[in-house]
Amino acid sequence: MTGILYGIHPVVEALRSGTRPLEEVVLLRSGNPRLQEIARLTQAAGVKLSYRERDALTKMAGNPHHQGAVARVGEPSALTLDELLEIPAARGELPFFLALDQVQDPQNLGNLLRTAEAAGVHGVILPERRAAPLTDVVAKAAAGASELLAVARVTNLVSALNRLKQEKIWVADTVTAGGVWPWDADLNCSLCIVLGGEAKGVRPLVHQTADFHLSLPMPGRVSSLNVASAGAALLYETLRQRMSKEKH
Amino acid sequence: MTGILYGIHPVVEALRSGTRPLEEVVLLRSGNPRLQEIARLTQAAGVKLSYRERDALTKMAGNPHHQGAVARVGEPSALTLDELLEIPAARGELPFFLALDQVQDPQNLGNLLRTAEAAGVHGVILPERRAAPLTDVVAKAAAGASELLAVARVTNLVSALNRLKQEKIWVADTVTAGGVWPWDADLNCSLCIVLGGEAKGVRPLVHQTADFHLSLPMPGRVSSLNVASAGAALLYETLRQRMSKEKH
Repeated sequence: MTGILYGIHPVVEALRSGTRPLEEVVLLRSGNPRLQEIARLTQAAGVKLSYRERDALTKMAGNPHHQGAVARVGEPSALTLDELLEIPAARGELPFFLALDQVQDPQNLGNLLRTAEAAGVHGVILPERRAAPLTDVVAKAAAGASELLAVARVTNLVSALNRLKQEKIWVADTVTAGGVWPWDADLNCSLCIVLGGEAKGVRPLVHQTADFHLSLPMPGRVSSLNVASAGAALLYETLRQRMSKEKH
Repeated sequence: MTGILYGIHPVVEALRSGTRPLEEVVLLRSGNPRLQEIARLTQAAGVKLSYRERDALTKMAGNPHHQGAVARVGEPSALTLDELLEIPAARGELPFFLALDQVQDPQNLGNLLRTAEAAGVHGVILPERRAAPLTDVVAKAAAGASELLAVARVTNLVSALNRLKQEKIWVADTVTAGGVWPWDADLNCSLCIVLGGEAKGVRPLVHQTADFHLSLPMPGRVSSLNVASAGAALLYETLRQRMSKEKH
């Protein structure tokens, strides 16, 4: 199955990272230097380049937010959980993973991939059946990160988390209330943070598998956060603890 | 001008908070206990209640994501900057404000209002012309927070920030690179965090007005974050510093 990527940033990242086979890059003919840079990168990569009118790009992308750049891509190379686990060791870093249970909204999924990649997460674990597929909406919201971040699709998230625990990786899930504040937990360890879906959070069996539970305090009156916002707060608190440790 | 709110959570919050005059609540007749709770709250508030078919609700809401609950509401009570500034003193708390410059995406604006309200922000400052209007899409993404959080619309954001500085409130804007890490800054002070728009960040004059500049580290390969995700990381780092101070 091939797919469509669109937007300047996603197309540039696809060309640079090479994690997905590129079949064709289609551009709007324009004086925009960023589109001209894409043309250079496409030719340097030996990928077919063509030019079309704005309307044809909109038709390919399925919406007008393509910024003049659309690419036909093959499937991203799927990783196994074992391959994901090798990444931190290869980089000589403390494992830092993110698992998403039942995150169905493609905007949220894309945003989470973007924040996770930016914050130095080594890979994301998604259940095959209980997460949004990696569509073009996800890729666009991820602003290139879906091309860069290692993702493993697993058939059973609980088994995958148990596998992580065998590898001495701590599993922390997130709950709306009743968990420890993230800054009272030691996140400067081999860690996998688990976030639950927009409506129902993590499933009970996933919750029971976790070594500990995190909650973000909410001194205001609303009683829940968007999952991508909660994820950003937790991933950056983890990064804070790791960077503080390095300094001392 | 009246508006439409939809979704169970936004309608419940509008009924509970009373910050916007409610003209009518329209529900799908259903055994859903959350809709029945809304019916009780509506009657208790003396607001007109009626029932319609799903299609009629979809037509009112403008889309099918109404969860069986739609409300006609008046304008939220607009606050002046002076009224906003009185809130922390009335609560005996250290001022904590958020200003948004050129945040145009309604999903991001709604998410930011939700996170800000949850994290205990006292009020949000929006420029009249350079932010998305508070539409129903914003209200839905805010999951009720747009009904709870004090918002001031100002004609000139730079003047508003200078006014804050006169009141001894520190103004910190956020830049993609070159600022201090938020955990290396003292955020446990009278503070207004300024976030810039999705495409261009804060405008130069706003940037020059800020007392100091914050950046989130990005050890990964993507070089920018979604504004709502960056906001979540910064607001929760501020809350962490305030809660840590309370303990010691």
